[in-house]
Amino acid sequence: MAQPFSPCGVITLTTDFGHKGPFVASMKGVVLTRFPNARIVDLTHEIIAHWPAEAGFWLERAYPYFPDGTVHMAVVDPGVGTSREIIAVQVGGHVFLAPDNGLLALLIDQATAPVLHKVDMARLRELGVKEVSATFHGRDVFAPLAAALASGQLRLEDVGPRTQEYIPSWVEAPEVTHNQVTGVVITVDTFGNLITNIPQHLVTALGAPQVHIGGHVLPFRRTYGDVRPGDYLALINSYGMLEVARSEQSASDGLGVQRGAPVTVRAI
Amino acid sequence: MAQPFSPCGVITLTTDFGHKGPFVASMKGVVLTRFPNARIVDLTHEIIAHWPAEAGFWLERAYPYFPDGTVHMAVVDPGVGTSREIIAVQVGGHVFLAPDNGLLALLIDQATAPVLHKVDMARLRELGVKEVSATFHGRDVFAPLAAALASGQLRLEDVGPRTQEYIPSWVEAPEVTHNQVTGVVITVDTFGNLITNIPQHLVTALGAPQVHIGGHVLPFRRTYGDVRPGDYLALINSYGMLEVARSEQSASDGLGVQRGAPVTVRAI
Amino acid sequence: MAQPFSPCGVITLTTDFGHKGPFVASMKGVVLTRFPNARIVDLTHEIIAHWPAEAGFWLERAYPYFPDGTVHMAVVDPGVGTSREIIAVQVGGHVFLAPDNGLLALLIDQATAPVLHKVDMARLRELGVKEVSATFHGRDVFAPLAAALASGQLRLEDVGPRTQEYIPSWVEAPEVTHNQVTGVVITVDTFGNLITNIPQHLVTALGAPQVHIGGHVLPFRRTYGDVRPGDYLALINSYGMLEVARSEQSASDGLGVQRGAPVTVRAI
Repeated sequence: MAQPFSPCGVITLTTDFGHKGPFVASMKGVVLTRFPNARIVDLTHEIIAHWPAEAGFWLERAYPYFPDGTVHMAVVDPGVGTSREIIAVQVGGHVFLAPDNGLLALLIDQATAPVLHKVDMARLRELGVKEVSATFHGRDVFAPLAAALASGQLRLEDVGPRTQEYIPSWVEAPEVTHNQVTGVVITVDTFGNLITNIPQHLVTALGAPQVHIGGHVLPFRRTYGDVRPGDYLALINSYGMLEVARSEQSASDGLGVQRGAPVTVRAI
Repeated sequence: MAQPFSPCGVITLTTDFGHKGPFVASMKGVVLTRFPNARIVDLTHEIIAHWPAEAGFWLERAYPYFPDGTVHMAVVDPGVGTSREIIAVQVGGHVFLAPDNGLLALLIDQATAPVLHKVDMARLRELGVKEVSATFHGRDVFAPLAAALASGQLRLEDVGPRTQEYIPSWVEAPEVTHNQVTGVVITVDTFGNLITNIPQHLVTALGAPQVHIGGHVLPFRRTYGDVRPGDYLALINSYGMLEVARSEQSASDGLGVQRGAPVTVRAI
Repeated sequence: MAQPFSPCGVITLTTDFGHKGPFVASMKGVVLTRFPNARIVDLTHEIIAHWPAEAGFWLERAYPYFPDGTVHMAVVDPGVGTSREIIAVQVGGHVFLAPDNGLLALLIDQATAPVLHKVDMARLRELGVKEVSATFHGRDVFAPLAAALASGQLRLEDVGPRTQEYIPSWVEAPEVTHNQVTGVVITVDTFGNLITNIPQHLVTALGAPQVHIGGHVLPFRRTYGDVRPGDYLALINSYGMLEVARSEQSASDGLGVQRGAPVTVRAI
């Protein structure tokens, strides 16, 4: 059974808002108004616009690097202002707050004993939130809730009713047959590395595999420096996922491959 | 009469410096050297280069989401090193520091009982600032002043003489006639939403209006999800301003409209 | 002889990771897990990919604006996972941690009595680091070390053996003759200003010089406002280096000049 959530005062923010305008800052202002000692960390604000799948993917991969007691707030929310729900999920010592639009589905699917609550919007009034805009729940709903959870003012079990239901992920799990695995490129990093949804254990099960992507066949290596600058490779990246890279250059540009592209790993 | 400013230790930064180079970080280093307990929040560093109007617009809209006692430092400063003045302005429980180049004009114009001071550069010597570069007052002037104001070392009334004068805004107020309002696009956010300088009360005065922009006529709705993905709409955004958007896409790209474009709201 | 390093709790981060994905955030999570009171400042994450020279240049120029006792962690690391070493360098009251790939060479070359240590990876095990990925030492090696140094848990003299050796810089020092100096553009800032590796004292030695770049000859001025908008100029920037600029526009775009371009300053 899950331990009660014990907050440490750290809050992470994940959005697709980018860095223009005061959007992220306004969320931080609301948090600091309500919880002056909050320590806020930007996970990323460059999630591909309106694509919750990338946010959920990175959160699921990155949250273990934060201290137990962290509140992770993720706002990739194309349905803002419509009737979509908000969920709060405890996994281990961490709490996640996000729209119930599939963003947290991967995390929930892979967790041991996740605890889900639907957020009861009546809590907001009790927290003194007077006005909620139709278009910016990150500032008006998520920030006050996160501040209350991270400061200990609000207990997770009090945010709203327990539930087992949630919207599934927008991306299907990798397809596995006896000698190959097929997944997709979930996102592309700053270096142009193509990051897939194929985890390490599915790759290593295939021995010394080859990786097929965009009409190319690439060797599987340990790190970027194992091939010459300009050469392509596939590797297990530092988050335990199959990644297609080009040493010191952009694999995405070189292969003409983007988010959503299929990737197949095949035993030789 | 205004309450004396009572600092809470939070400082916001607004610049057009972007994220390349150590420019913003050097300002933070100076603040932390002088005020180790400062809590610094980036409002945005992606103001359109050399356009104080956007900085002032966002500050005026976003400052209420920060705690009373916040010092807001804004450095969009094409006249750096010339004879332009620096002003410090108190509005409610907040203090704003900026070049006197029109950046704070909108805030001052709309505030109840704003208190303006011209910064006396002699204060810098008293704060131990030995050298001021010709090109980076953000680091050499604004950061030491903000640290001193936010830490309580320097009182607002001591930064320099009271004044009533300030450089006006670079953008004119919306033009209002009996059945229409004309304003401009002040900025474009990460999603390509076009954000105007037309406030909610001027729109609602027109009943159920239509919005004219770039040769198109758009319906007025409550939130993005009220139209189908790909459709255009106008709405009052979460900062109380008229915004032209395209559901799940970029209105700016789709309409070919940028910052500065005229927008007219017309009663039907 | 150098004073022992006395940490103040501030850690700066310099990388070429950009702002996509959870890479920088994971480093911060690791730091906060190990040192909850750390105050972390992003120096920049937009170093030109795989080019340690820019990171070292900005660190050398910007570190004096941070408080004594700061730990500066720089991860521009094309050789990650290969046999490259990691070095820790004390200069004045600051400590720098980086791959030994030339990143810190400029800093070391210009410092008075720098103290160099090679990092002994055995320290990581003693700090409880269980697993080190092949591709992300920023998170798995640098962050734990920086947290330990910044919290006082690990003394600089204990990170590993003293050394005098380090990989030299990727960029040569400016070439000086009796009536001219030739250097290179190290980087381009958000405004399109071209920032060179030619320091002020080499320029002022030439009296009232002219600056030759990309087939153009530019006048030397004090600040951007000293020429008309759209005109080019050269100046000593706020970090004491020769910079080529265009008033209120991008010199890089206008001149078609990028990082690496030669620049010559000539006495008239």
